[in-house]
Amino acid sequence: MSTVATPARRNGVEIAKLFATLDAVKAQPEAARFRFSVDNRWISGTHNQNRISTFYGVGAEQRHSATFSIEADHPAVLVGEDAAPTPAEILLSALASCLTSGLGNIAAVRKITLTSVESRVEGDIDLRGILGLSGEVRNGFSQIRVSFRVRGDAPPAKLRELVQQAVDRSAVYDVLTHGVPISVDVATS
Amino acid sequence: MSTVATPARRNGVEIAKLFATLDAVKAQPEAARFRFSVDNRWISGTHNQNRISTFYGVGAEQRHSATFSIEADHPAVLVGEDAAPTPAEILLSALASCLTSGLGNIAAVRKITLTSVESRVEGDIDLRGILGLSGEVRNGFSQIRVSFRVRGDAPPAKLRELVQQAVDRSAVYDVLTHGVPISVDVATS
Repeated sequence: MSTVATPARRNGVEIAKLFATLDAVKAQPEAARFRFSVDNRWISGTHNQNRISTFYGVGAEQRHSATFSIEADHPAVLVGEDAAPTPAEILLSALASCLTSGLGNIAAVRKITLTSVESRVEGDIDLRGILGLSGEVRNGFSQIRVSFRVRGDAPPAKLRELVQQAVDRSAVYDVLTHGVPISVDVATS
Repeated sequence: MSTVATPARRNGVEIAKLFATLDAVKAQPEAARFRFSVDNRWISGTHNQNRISTFYGVGAEQRHSATFSIEADHPAVLVGEDAAPTPAEILLSALASCLTSGLGNIAAVRKITLTSVESRVEGDIDLRGILGLSGEVRNGFSQIRVSFRVRGDAPPAKLRELVQQAVDRSAVYDVLTHGVPISVDVATS
């Protein structure tokens, strides 16, 4: 009789740690209260930089392994210097990444070994909104389309279910489809 | 009698080009139809990479000055390798950047010279949603807070109005507060 050992990792995910995290949060729900934050500074024109270094979670302030930087700019056709992606493209990146990060974890839990996961996210936007040239056009995307290509050691239906579960448990997908309250305050000194 | 020349740039914004862009879009509204996109590939676990290289606008496919990359990962406490910011933090970056890019342009049009613009964006999230541990908790942020500090050669009320106008004309703020339809399709071969 042969035995099949459960691997410590699948798809790069430490499976025991994933289940331990779930158990820890079940035992202590307040550990699940997180606060993420970014600090942005204007550089010039439409060019600016976000720095990401700490977050709150598991009951304490946490520090990332490094201070991450995400810059943004407008392209030349939108009066920028094209030094970095546009904020709109950064938003689409957040969506692609949230779905893909979730998919990696979900596949590991379902014992599916992934070969490759690729996706393309497109968003349609009529810039007459943000340019203030039409009161009938919204400022943001009118529609976003996500196309996944997933390969792994499971039948197509199971691979498609991974994407569906990633959608059903995505923080970014939820916020983009349902909206979120945003407060804005300003200091001038 | 002294004359005050209009500068070619204010806050790093080419003012004549900004007005020329507005005139061009007024004359040809279809030039304002843009499509932004990102291509994401899974690396391992929760780690993945977005590449941003082209977009459609002004009636043609456009190429950025470079292929930009935005990576994402989960931190160690969320079973990742902490190789990059989380998708949630990338989303907050998109919001901070969109408001700040807009503010740079708006200040230039209003002849306000900015000294500095800093902002912090925070988002509260209860991870029991995405972990599937509570049916009463949403997946995404429950609230986002934006705090700006703006300095420039205008009275505080005028500086606060810049932020308000940036909010009123922000693509990302609109999508995050009002939501957007998202379609998802999956290929498995």
